Amino acid sequence: MNFASDNAWTAHPAVMEALNDANSGAVMGYGADEVTARAEAALREVLQAPDAVIRFVATGTAANALVCAQLSPSFGRIYCHADAHIETSECSAPEFFSGGAKLVTLQGEDGKITPDTLAAAIRHGEGGGLNEGRNAMVSITNATEWGTTYSAAEVAALADLAHGAGLPLHMDGARFANAVAGQNCSAADMTRRAGVDALCFGGTKNGAMAAEAVVFFDPAHAEGFDYRRKQTGHVYSKQRFLAAQMLALASDGLWLELGRAANAKAERLAEGIVSAGGALLAPRQSNAVFATIPAEAHQRARAAGAIYHLWPDKSAEGLDPVPIRLVTAWDTPDADIEAVIRLIAG
Amino acid sequence: MNFASDNAWTAHPAVMEALNDANSGAVMGYGADEVTARAEAALREVLQAPDAVIRFVATGTAANALVCAQLSPSFGRIYCHADAHIETSECSAPEFFSGGAKLVTLQGEDGKITPDTLAAAIRHGEGGGLNEGRNAMVSITNATEWGTTYSAAEVAALADLAHGAGLPLHMDGARFANAVAGQNCSAADMTRRAGVDALCFGGTKNGAMAAEAVVFFDPAHAEGFDYRRKQTGHVYSKQRFLAAQMLALASDGLWLELGRAANAKAERLAEGIVSAGGALLAPRQSNAVFATIPAEAHQRARAAGAIYHLWPDKSAEGLDPVPIRLVTAWDTPDADIEAVIRLIAG
Amino acid sequence: MNFASDNAWTAHPAVMEALNDANSGAVMGYGADEVTARAEAALREVLQAPDAVIRFVATGTAANALVCAQLSPSFGRIYCHADAHIETSECSAPEFFSGGAKLVTLQGEDGKITPDTLAAAIRHGEGGGLNEGRNAMVSITNATEWGTTYSAAEVAALADLAHGAGLPLHMDGARFANAVAGQNCSAADMTRRAGVDALCFGGTKNGAMAAEAVVFFDPAHAEGFDYRRKQTGHVYSKQRFLAAQMLALASDGLWLELGRAANAKAERLAEGIVSAGGALLAPRQSNAVFATIPAEAHQRARAAGAIYHLWPDKSAEGLDPVPIRLVTAWDTPDADIEAVIRLIAG
Amino acid sequence: MNFASDNAWTAHPAVMEALNDANSGAVMGYGADEVTARAEAALREVLQAPDAVIRFVATGTAANALVCAQLSPSFGRIYCHADAHIETSECSAPEFFSGGAKLVTLQGEDGKITPDTLAAAIRHGEGGGLNEGRNAMVSITNATEWGTTYSAAEVAALADLAHGAGLPLHMDGARFANAVAGQNCSAADMTRRAGVDALCFGGTKNGAMAAEAVVFFDPAHAEGFDYRRKQTGHVYSKQRFLAAQMLALASDGLWLELGRAANAKAERLAEGIVSAGGALLAPRQSNAVFATIPAEAHQRARAAGAIYHLWPDKSAEGLDPVPIRLVTAWDTPDADIEAVIRLIAG
Repeated sequence: MNFASDNAWTAHPAVMEALNDANSGAVMGYGADEVTARAEAALREVLQAPDAVIRFVATGTAANALVCAQLSPSFGRIYCHADAHIETSECSAPEFFSGGAKLVTLQGEDGKITPDTLAAAIRHGEGGGLNEGRNAMVSITNATEWGTTYSAAEVAALADLAHGAGLPLHMDGARFANAVAGQNCSAADMTRRAGVDALCFGGTKNGAMAAEAVVFFDPAHAEGFDYRRKQTGHVYSKQRFLAAQMLALASDGLWLELGRAANAKAERLAEGIVSAGGALLAPRQSNAVFATIPAEAHQRARAAGAIYHLWPDKSAEGLDPVPIRLVTAWDTPDADIEAVIRLIAG
Repeated sequence: MNFASDNAWTAHPAVMEALNDANSGAVMGYGADEVTARAEAALREVLQAPDAVIRFVATGTAANALVCAQLSPSFGRIYCHADAHIETSECSAPEFFSGGAKLVTLQGEDGKITPDTLAAAIRHGEGGGLNEGRNAMVSITNATEWGTTYSAAEVAALADLAHGAGLPLHMDGARFANAVAGQNCSAADMTRRAGVDALCFGGTKNGAMAAEAVVFFDPAHAEGFDYRRKQTGHVYSKQRFLAAQMLALASDGLWLELGRAANAKAERLAEGIVSAGGALLAPRQSNAVFATIPAEAHQRARAAGAIYHLWPDKSAEGLDPVPIRLVTAWDTPDADIEAVIRLIAG
Repeated sequence: MNFASDNAWTAHPAVMEALNDANSGAVMGYGADEVTARAEAALREVLQAPDAVIRFVATGTAANALVCAQLSPSFGRIYCHADAHIETSECSAPEFFSGGAKLVTLQGEDGKITPDTLAAAIRHGEGGGLNEGRNAMVSITNATEWGTTYSAAEVAALADLAHGAGLPLHMDGARFANAVAGQNCSAADMTRRAGVDALCFGGTKNGAMAAEAVVFFDPAHAEGFDYRRKQTGHVYSKQRFLAAQMLALASDGLWLELGRAANAKAERLAEGIVSAGGALLAPRQSNAVFATIPAEAHQRARAAGAIYHLWPDKSAEGLDPVPIRLVTAWDTPDADIEAVIRLIAG
Repeated sequence: MNFASDNAWTAHPAVMEALNDANSGAVMGYGADEVTARAEAALREVLQAPDAVIRFVATGTAANALVCAQLSPSFGRIYCHADAHIETSECSAPEFFSGGAKLVTLQGEDGKITPDTLAAAIRHGEGGGLNEGRNAMVSITNATEWGTTYSAAEVAALADLAHGAGLPLHMDGARFANAVAGQNCSAADMTRRAGVDALCFGGTKNGAMAAEAVVFFDPAHAEGFDYRRKQTGHVYSKQRFLAAQMLALASDGLWLELGRAANAKAERLAEGIVSAGGALLAPRQSNAVFATIPAEAHQRARAAGAIYHLWPDKSAEGLDPVPIRLVTAWDTPDADIEAVIRLIAG
């Protein structure tokens, strides 16, 4: 009963098979191999973005921080939600990679930034002179850190605002498949057509071992990026093994199928928790459930070995009801879900 | 009628004289000169800190950012007030100098951090694991960015908390003289005896041309600092001219006398503004006045050439009453003060 | 006939099997899993270093640059050979990770630093004052970039010198297995007992997909390292997959067996090239052969599809004889070796 | 008898007078004052560069490192002489400011880079792929660290090469006045017309207290520079005092007059040393003399209190003859020069 994170679960058999397939004979290193070319092409197809520059890295923190360094100078202001992964969970990697850029955090319900909030922040930044640094970029997460999702139209509204101020829009898509599945739109509608400039397309939480794609829809944004990736130690010598994972996910819609599977499991889990007396803290729109449950339900579940996070941190221990976060993966066993629901129901 | 900042005003005649005195013959560069030795000694005397390591730089941003880099690793969390100069006015210099440390901002009335808020933040940081970085240091400003001051006892309470968590305490003293004058305590009581580990002793806003002192009360905290200062371009070759300014201020209590003079002018200004129908936004405790004044008073004053900042930024234009900040220096003409009061009174 | 690099070749079946074994059920992420614990233990056993702190990353550049950042301040001087991988092949990652440390390069035959050269450089650095930065660490590569190896005694001589000056010694062991196999000593003799403080134990070029271990023999050197690894994006969420690769290599001496296999292939290649009229540029001591071959032999080999690097760079094109580098892996086909020898012989 | 450096000497009376003149009343800070505007204009006039962007900082290290950060990405290759100040004397400030750029050092007689050497290095860098970073800029020093000077034609030859490869050319002009005086050409011929893109125009070693100007001849090269200067702590709040120094030097040709004076003193010194049995190590072309003198002459001079540097470092102590460096300033007393010559003559 592990609901700690979707990255607690396994790599999909198709990923393992792709790795085995790629493991044959000698090929040139550092990305000059056929698997890499095919994986990039497959992802461009998924995103309907024939001109996009796509590069693979192994971790989401690397993907996000590299994009921040690419799109912001050291003196830049990067606008993001106060609960954004880049702010709360990457050990200030964006600041390090960029040489000191400042994450300017915005409040917003359910983990989402609203256009009004963003507009006010951008305006303030424009008036700050040298003191406050220079507006550089906007970053959103989809699905968000609260399991909610932005619709393509909501993304477009933020992109328009950003572009109106000359700023590129980054989407942290560590759970991109879950967002697209949840919104039931196309990957292209959610990104390129909505005005996203850089996308981190997550694989690790969606059935890969460790594979993320950094996508720049406009090649101009990728200028020098390969050097940056190299300098930060994120170029694999045997890159076929990074690419093979992404190739498997990007083929035959597997990425979206896995996203849908994880979402469906979360839907059942949310429904079950509410039936069992819990209350949702945010709408269930992807593969995470944020809820409060009675303290005794929590103790019962923990005692039985259920694993999940208190929210926002362990200071929630002792509260009644207890706020918690549960995340499902494509391969979370249905039996685990039913078991934890029963434990909460008591 | 310039109340934009205390750094809009002049260098004190004693500072100019000290520069002239120092400008004679050849001396060794980079701090190996007698004026530097004397200035360091004089400041150690002021602070009653015979073991302190003291170094001079030309700007407050350099002083603060160097201390941050010295006391925090790149993955450190630096606790400060949300309105701290290091957060709002240094173009993310602390992030740059430290290689990416995160400023974790705390709310607090009148620009001051309370022990409860700090304690909760430190606790959260201790539980954050790798995701949120590691607790590194606490930084306070005295006098604060709202013109208020911490008492020695308040500083000690924060220092105790910080030390209890293994964190050093930094005091940004760009307006240290104004704080000490306002609290009517000794420099040592306000710093070393209260548990301050690193002090930026400001000279520029207090009658110097451009001179700040970085003070480490425990030499262990200064390990490698000279290299860091050099690497950031903040070692003067003709350092006697930096030191001479500080020597003048540190001699015969001039620094404190100038701080008192500026404070007294602010006191009269605050009193006058209130009499003229304005209202203070924060207690007047040093050399700055934060107040709201009627919009028509603002227009009158501006039209007559009075210079001051809208607060917190120019988005305040159009409000009625208008929130403003006015800062006095040791040499702000009394006539200017009376004139602006009259303009506000209408 | 790919002799471009050992990273052009495949992952060993035991590595693939370990990945499959690890891919079962849910485990906690970020290294808090059993495979990681077992892999760390296995490597401590290999190195006979029960107290060592061991962490896994995916690339050699990351491993080396993280060690440089860990052991050198931003103003540090890092002594290394002029042909060291950290100097020539990592896109100044060490400079980036450390925030600006300077690689001070030393000349030396066959890619090796001699004690005399190192001693003179350290002495110069000690006298450089602030201008030249502060001596911070020494880095050697074993096997070297010229395919030669340091003996345990040679390592110890350099370690003694470094330690005498208060500097830690780093060994870039991207081809550590080849060095140990070549010197026919134990891993512990080559490292811990010789005075190595930090080892990058390479897996990628020795049968892994992408796995390197960073080893600190003294835990004090690892202080804060986990944060640094996180901040640079080098902590895997599904770390079991990184650890499983290293577990396979560290089990039953596989790492050394593969190192020996690659070395033996290089030995035959070197012998064959010399027989075919080539001349070695450096003694063949690990899994690389540096040689000159007649221009016509080069053209014949290239035309037949043999892949290898001109040395030191493509400016060698057109020379006669042509200096080249050929690297063998544990799985380089013997037939390829014989074929390229025949091509060179003409 | 201080010949340690030109920065051991005083500020010129005209500089002191300009500081006094500037010290009157309130002005806006951070460069928005009239003295700054006048100083920038005066320097544009000196350089006959009406479009140039000019900014003032207090140290040469800051000036050079800021230019490096401005013109090179973190993964850039910066070509410079092996004895360049940015390589040997700035504690890796360029690496720090740029976030990790690599200084690629070139050999060359008398501290000067030749076109052939530069061309070969650029070519190598172009072929290095990701491994070696990307060619970013070329930096020369004029006058050089060996007291020699590049002619305008020599500068133009290097600039043409750099531009042909798409690289900007930086001139470290800490002793620019001495170079221009030595070459007897115009400041514009030496820089803008020769193709220099960024100039650090030194004031400190030429009669200022602490003032350097960073000049970008093409405003496009200055994009974002003000933020960078702020973020590194190099924006003065009371900037009029930085500007006033430069205004004094740029007015009425004072900078060039002082450069000529220092050069003339060095000429007499060189002549005298040769007459006294010493031998020049490099042609005397600006305000420094590099020579060997008999060990007994050295001991005599030292005993009598003469101050100068052994060259290249103190390891020269004990050699016979002894290599030394002596630098003159505009105000080095003629009596000191004659005295040291007599001491050497014995």
